[in-house]
Amino acid sequence: MENTYDFGLIGLGVMGRNFILNVADNNFSAMGYDLDDEKVNALIVEGQDTKKVNATTNIEHFVQSLSQPRKIMLLVPAGKIVDSVIESLLPYLDKNDLIIDGGNSFFTDTDRREAYLQGKGIHFFGSGVSGGAKGARRGPSIMPGGNKEAYKEVQPIFEAVSAKFKGEPCVAYLGPKSAGNYVKMVHNGIEYGLMQLTSEIYDLLKKAGKYSNDELHAVFDSWNKGRLQSFLIEISAEIFKQEDDKGDGRLVDKILDKAKQKGTGKWTSQNAMDLGIPIPSIDIAVSMREISALKEERVLADKLYNRPEPAIMDKKEMAKWAEEALYFSFITTYAQGLHQLADASKEYGYDLDLSVIAKIWRAGCIIRAGLLEDISTAFTKDKQLPNLLLSSQFVPKVQSTVGATRNLVAYGAKNGIPLPGLSNSLTYFDAYTSGRLPLNLIQAQRDHFGSHTYERTDMEGIFHTEWE
Amino acid sequence: MENTYDFGLIGLGVMGRNFILNVADNNFSAMGYDLDDEKVNALIVEGQDTKKVNATTNIEHFVQSLSQPRKIMLLVPAGKIVDSVIESLLPYLDKNDLIIDGGNSFFTDTDRREAYLQGKGIHFFGSGVSGGAKGARRGPSIMPGGNKEAYKEVQPIFEAVSAKFKGEPCVAYLGPKSAGNYVKMVHNGIEYGLMQLTSEIYDLLKKAGKYSNDELHAVFDSWNKGRLQSFLIEISAEIFKQEDDKGDGRLVDKILDKAKQKGTGKWTSQNAMDLGIPIPSIDIAVSMREISALKEERVLADKLYNRPEPAIMDKKEMAKWAEEALYFSFITTYAQGLHQLADASKEYGYDLDLSVIAKIWRAGCIIRAGLLEDISTAFTKDKQLPNLLLSSQFVPKVQSTVGATRNLVAYGAKNGIPLPGLSNSLTYFDAYTSGRLPLNLIQAQRDHFGSHTYERTDMEGIFHTEWE
Repeated sequence: MENTYDFGLIGLGVMGRNFILNVADNNFSAMGYDLDDEKVNALIVEGQDTKKVNATTNIEHFVQSLSQPRKIMLLVPAGKIVDSVIESLLPYLDKNDLIIDGGNSFFTDTDRREAYLQGKGIHFFGSGVSGGAKGARRGPSIMPGGNKEAYKEVQPIFEAVSAKFKGEPCVAYLGPKSAGNYVKMVHNGIEYGLMQLTSEIYDLLKKAGKYSNDELHAVFDSWNKGRLQSFLIEISAEIFKQEDDKGDGRLVDKILDKAKQKGTGKWTSQNAMDLGIPIPSIDIAVSMREISALKEERVLADKLYNRPEPAIMDKKEMAKWAEEALYFSFITTYAQGLHQLADASKEYGYDLDLSVIAKIWRAGCIIRAGLLEDISTAFTKDKQLPNLLLSSQFVPKVQSTVGATRNLVAYGAKNGIPLPGLSNSLTYFDAYTSGRLPLNLIQAQRDHFGSHTYERTDMEGIFHTEWE
Repeated sequence: MENTYDFGLIGLGVMGRNFILNVADNNFSAMGYDLDDEKVNALIVEGQDTKKVNATTNIEHFVQSLSQPRKIMLLVPAGKIVDSVIESLLPYLDKNDLIIDGGNSFFTDTDRREAYLQGKGIHFFGSGVSGGAKGARRGPSIMPGGNKEAYKEVQPIFEAVSAKFKGEPCVAYLGPKSAGNYVKMVHNGIEYGLMQLTSEIYDLLKKAGKYSNDELHAVFDSWNKGRLQSFLIEISAEIFKQEDDKGDGRLVDKILDKAKQKGTGKWTSQNAMDLGIPIPSIDIAVSMREISALKEERVLADKLYNRPEPAIMDKKEMAKWAEEALYFSFITTYAQGLHQLADASKEYGYDLDLSVIAKIWRAGCIIRAGLLEDISTAFTKDKQLPNLLLSSQFVPKVQSTVGATRNLVAYGAKNGIPLPGLSNSLTYFDAYTSGRLPLNLIQAQRDHFGSHTYERTDMEGIFHTEWE
């Protein structure tokens, strides 16, 4: 059994167990490792049919069971545990072995680890995996970054286990260093944005259109057959159908309105600010999770203020506008995330190909959507496209749906239904497409109080005025 | 001349020169230091009349000229230069001397420096100074944090030079460690928010109300005599009057619509996300400066999309709504910044008194406003107030102005005039005052794809469902 397993996996939680079974299903032999006896035994039992899976609690046996160069994937929580797992592996590794971090590690941690291991002749990959537990089992989208040559060692396995879109594997080598973690981080930021938008449309349909859960199911289900086709719309439709197993009615109505977060959305926003790239549709999704957590304050505040009674809208018109506004806002949210990736690619030397990224997001991952096919095409046509909104292919899509978005944002503002994601998508669009913005006043203020200078529209140079 | 000067100042740029002259005007003798001969000589000439000011390019002479314990203020750019100035001072300092960093240093840098200098028996203060060049000369708002006992040494000088609001000095000991820098950082974040809001109202009046610069001057000037009274409204009124000294017409129309930033707004947003406190009115102000910088892309995008022709509104009605919306949005922006301070106070052990902070912001600083008197009163009444919006004193102010905000945000959405600051202030309000938000759907989605569990509205516990 020495040196015979094709692939090693550390961390046999739900994601890890599912990923390794997926590897075995694809005819690669795989060895799992976890400190927890129960998890090791569970995997051995569950994997016995495949005859390809084994597991151990002994790290030395684990490493020695793998064929060289070893391909060892970590599916453990991001943070210090990744460093300690690396340290526990090091005594047993040989030159050119590969460690692949499949978790949501912060990208600068990945850069640090890669540099550290490079000094020891070991390759280190940050490799985002999206698709949740089911994705890991049946085919996730995988976003690897690291040494290009070394990637070839694991490429056949990743291509086999990944999701397929019309036969094409949803995995590709993305770039050097932390490119994989960075792309996954922004993937998650976009995910935050799309989820927030979906929840706002749900709120609108319920409050302004008086949609029942069955009607919500029906309309989301129909959208999922059209241009909004996407995983998040699909599971929303399912969610509205789910009966409450602890009481009467539908489960969705019983779920507390506090949405948690694990940090990748926040990182996306914080890093976009470091780059100077505006992603307000993602920022606001992070803020809304924070506001949702302030449940007690909200309940208190709710009693202090009168809220307008929402004007009731026609169900059909409502649904039409909602579909258009969601399509518009999905586009602007992808546009912002991809804008960030384009800039990060230069800043961090990732040399990303956005058309490839859009391609590997078409299946397997949480933000998979029919729209990504069009996005991929737009970036294939023009690799240097600064922003999706500038793609001639997207202009008509956006132009034809912005009107409905205007109507709904205006409705929400008037009727006290908070639509922060839709609003930010719209004002982002209106600002980004404004040749002239009123920020001349801000620059004048800055020069007035702080002598920060300004430029002029009619001549070159840097100016300062002694304001009266 | 040994040991005779009351106060030392390092960095004789505009801010430093003005601050030290202010110290001398208040009958404290002060020694300046700069590497630049010209700056040293300029100060000596300018300070001649006071007979209280001297300056040198020799750091040893500089330190030796100061009475002990020495009080040395740095007005140098934030970053590594602060560390190198500290190192150059150290050989000549004695125990209990005070170094006061008056720049916009990042608060964790201040904590690091304070700990480092504590080991050497030297006190270190992070002490934000706001008010621009004029404020430094005539009376700024000063935000010191550090060792409470040591503060007493510099207190008489700071109280003398600071701005006064009805006789009360706009300076107070704020808290230990980096409390002063932190408060100044959030001050600047609020400043970003208020400036963005002002620029949007300017845009609205111009586009929808067809206001001329003279009319803009008149309306801002009248607002500045009412409840909107504030430095930023005041200087905006002045800006609209300023003639172009390089051509015809008003200068404001010639200023390029690119607003720069120096980082404190960004830091405020990034740190709020670390704390989990929503400040979308500040976040969007940071994003808008970024969008403003993308001038070339905006000009390109402008040509690709049709923009609605704004419906013209009645000038008077417009001005009334604008005043109300600005008042509403100023309140919600202060509310967000103060919310962040309240949370940071617990997280970092600053033990801040928000009523005192509102007080020292009433004069001297960039965000000074009549409103701060009411804010201070609200936090005096209830030191533990979690959010200004929950103050019974503020409910009627907010309730009576939210309607106009709804009208303008709806107008902007319909007419393609981007009002991201107003929108975010409104949706923040609508979300914060919603006892129930639709984020139950988001938590359901998270449980569906990632088994992230959820809470229920009707029973205690953590739940997970196998979604169908």
